[in-house]
Amino acid sequence: MKAEIISVGTEILMGELTDTNAAWVAARLPALGIQLRWVSIVGDNLEMLSEAFTKGLERSDIIFTTGGLGPTQDDLTREGVAAALGETPTVQEDAVRHLEQQFRDRVTSMPPRNIKQANLIPSAQFITNRSGTAPGWWAESNGGIIVCMPGPPAEMHAIWEEEVVPRLLKIVDEEVTITRNIKTMGMSEAEMDEIISEFFGQENPYLGIYSKADGNHLRIIARAKDETTARSLIYPVERAIEDRLAPYIWGYDKETPDQAVGIALRERGLTLATMESNTGGYLVNSLTDSLDSANYFKGGLVAIGDEVKIALGVPAEVIQQHGSVSQQTADAMAEAVRKGLGADYGIGISGADGSPSKDGQPAGLSYLSITGPNGSRQMKLRVPPRRVTVKRRMSNNALIELRKLIVAEG
Amino acid sequence: MKAEIISVGTEILMGELTDTNAAWVAARLPALGIQLRWVSIVGDNLEMLSEAFTKGLERSDIIFTTGGLGPTQDDLTREGVAAALGETPTVQEDAVRHLEQQFRDRVTSMPPRNIKQANLIPSAQFITNRSGTAPGWWAESNGGIIVCMPGPPAEMHAIWEEEVVPRLLKIVDEEVTITRNIKTMGMSEAEMDEIISEFFGQENPYLGIYSKADGNHLRIIARAKDETTARSLIYPVERAIEDRLAPYIWGYDKETPDQAVGIALRERGLTLATMESNTGGYLVNSLTDSLDSANYFKGGLVAIGDEVKIALGVPAEVIQQHGSVSQQTADAMAEAVRKGLGADYGIGISGADGSPSKDGQPAGLSYLSITGPNGSRQMKLRVPPRRVTVKRRMSNNALIELRKLIVAEG
Repeated sequence: MKAEIISVGTEILMGELTDTNAAWVAARLPALGIQLRWVSIVGDNLEMLSEAFTKGLERSDIIFTTGGLGPTQDDLTREGVAAALGETPTVQEDAVRHLEQQFRDRVTSMPPRNIKQANLIPSAQFITNRSGTAPGWWAESNGGIIVCMPGPPAEMHAIWEEEVVPRLLKIVDEEVTITRNIKTMGMSEAEMDEIISEFFGQENPYLGIYSKADGNHLRIIARAKDETTARSLIYPVERAIEDRLAPYIWGYDKETPDQAVGIALRERGLTLATMESNTGGYLVNSLTDSLDSANYFKGGLVAIGDEVKIALGVPAEVIQQHGSVSQQTADAMAEAVRKGLGADYGIGISGADGSPSKDGQPAGLSYLSITGPNGSRQMKLRVPPRRVTVKRRMSNNALIELRKLIVAEG
Repeated sequence: MKAEIISVGTEILMGELTDTNAAWVAARLPALGIQLRWVSIVGDNLEMLSEAFTKGLERSDIIFTTGGLGPTQDDLTREGVAAALGETPTVQEDAVRHLEQQFRDRVTSMPPRNIKQANLIPSAQFITNRSGTAPGWWAESNGGIIVCMPGPPAEMHAIWEEEVVPRLLKIVDEEVTITRNIKTMGMSEAEMDEIISEFFGQENPYLGIYSKADGNHLRIIARAKDETTARSLIYPVERAIEDRLAPYIWGYDKETPDQAVGIALRERGLTLATMESNTGGYLVNSLTDSLDSANYFKGGLVAIGDEVKIALGVPAEVIQQHGSVSQQTADAMAEAVRKGLGADYGIGISGADGSPSKDGQPAGLSYLSITGPNGSRQMKLRVPPRRVTVKRRMSNNALIELRKLIVAEG
């Protein structure tokens, strides 16, 4: 089954809003055995929407749309579908009553313009939207399907999982695609290429290397008639990669460095505290993304200047003797925050920020220190001196090194 | 001049990589007088690429592509353009020598597969890429133009500014579109709608309200034959908005809350320090995004549990008496970090995190405190209890309230 996605909205087309819906839906299609062939963004323009749907029905079996289901005159997805199918929307009294009830539940009355959301064409059915006023549309015509979903991500995600997926499972009857993503850090793409060369160049399972901010990802993709068969194609490649690259692997699939650290700490009942300078809080902000981080993360200090580092427990003489961008200062930061906040592990990051130079140190030079119950680990890194790159790379490195150390210590 | 953008890459199509290039280019077209009509994502598939270019040349005057210019067999943008134009790429010896030189400069030799990047068709010219090995293509055929740019954003941005814009300026001769974005917080969309109602519903200048994580944005868009005329259309609307909504306006255009705070502090030679709990470091990480933040931002502390708050200077009796989620604790946090790090202003944020409840307080309830040389400001907020929403909303509110306070104090 060939699919395409059409994201609707002039704001997206003008670059004022980044479309995350298309990627979200795209990532969920392979496991359903649906092949995505096209993604388009179309503005709030009836003629262009209608053309996009007409063209889409010619070349695809199913079209997913997000956006353009609101009550204003700029919301034209319904009208576009109707025009492409040559039908006229009419107001459905049941739907009007349902909308009025939704507004009463919010202790307000329905603005007249919202009546538009109760429109339907003969070829379409409503898709219930529990999180908002805009119901979706499921339209079928001449064997082609158009699924219209609301634009706000929370509403779209809920409608997708509760309403759209169950309907898709009834009609899809093709191969499934399963992906396994193995995340590594510390070995170059070229070295990996050699060590696991025999798995490259195959079609199914397909193996690819992707360079990311948190290291090199190895992605195995298999297609088969069902999930079990697809997994059995992936298994031998995954085992071989694990055998040969074990020390470099830090996570799988959607796992992020902060989640990998969280799992390692929680399993052992250990805790962490951090002190950072040139990463500016990126590290602590990553660590608190997990809902249960309060169970293993005590807190993080961001110390910009020398006086603040000293106020937070770094000995003044260490900074005077070695400079604030030095391994010794990073060590003292890790130790100070570990003791100060009463954690098992402490991370210290000290480095030059994104600006040309600091303390005569080259831009992008950073020192990482991790201290724990069984000793410590040091690391000197140089990353491209862009603010966001320094923040992200150093934070990821710190987290992945910490995980290695915890796992190595048992 | 009608344009479309085609982002090339199976990884984007599969939702494994979010396409930021299309939005980046899209945002730059209106000021050049180029009207963007379509954005598509096409996978690494020769047939589909060729179809996309053929269709694109039928309906648009110019097509911008990003991605698919690398050296591997999956990089098929060049081949797709050649197929759509019915031409055959041939290796250009000059370009081969240039590539070999680029690799020698990196003290390595050119892998044979990179020779592909020296391919050209008769209808195309190379676009110099100073930041990478993949040169772009500028192809013209029957009055239609295809501009192929590399996918890595840093390379694409450089090629766009250095090479593509100058060529576009030579051929574009249409109206320009200018946008002015006025950012507010604290007044609802409905209230604004009333206060500035007479400006809505006009075509040129067009006024729209957009609800964002950092408040409501008022966007004025004007089209005219040149920039000066467009600005003269915007001016009276902008003045009226400023007259009527002044206390709610915190920034303009691309300005972010942390930049607005940075400007207010820097102009007055004042400094800031922060202590946060349920925003988990989002606040401090935002504040360090500006390259010059070290001039006014001393540091930020992220204190998760009560003991850590106490270790960082919050009096134990305040927490015992009022609870860790309370206005008094937020006040004590702001005061402790302001004194501890020696700053003029201190921000304290204390609240329940994204999880169901804490200390019996409803999820999403947060207290904000800002203390400064001339007194302090308190605020109680309740935001939807999703981790990322709590982080973003509370941080933005804290920054915008701080800016208000600084500006009010002169």
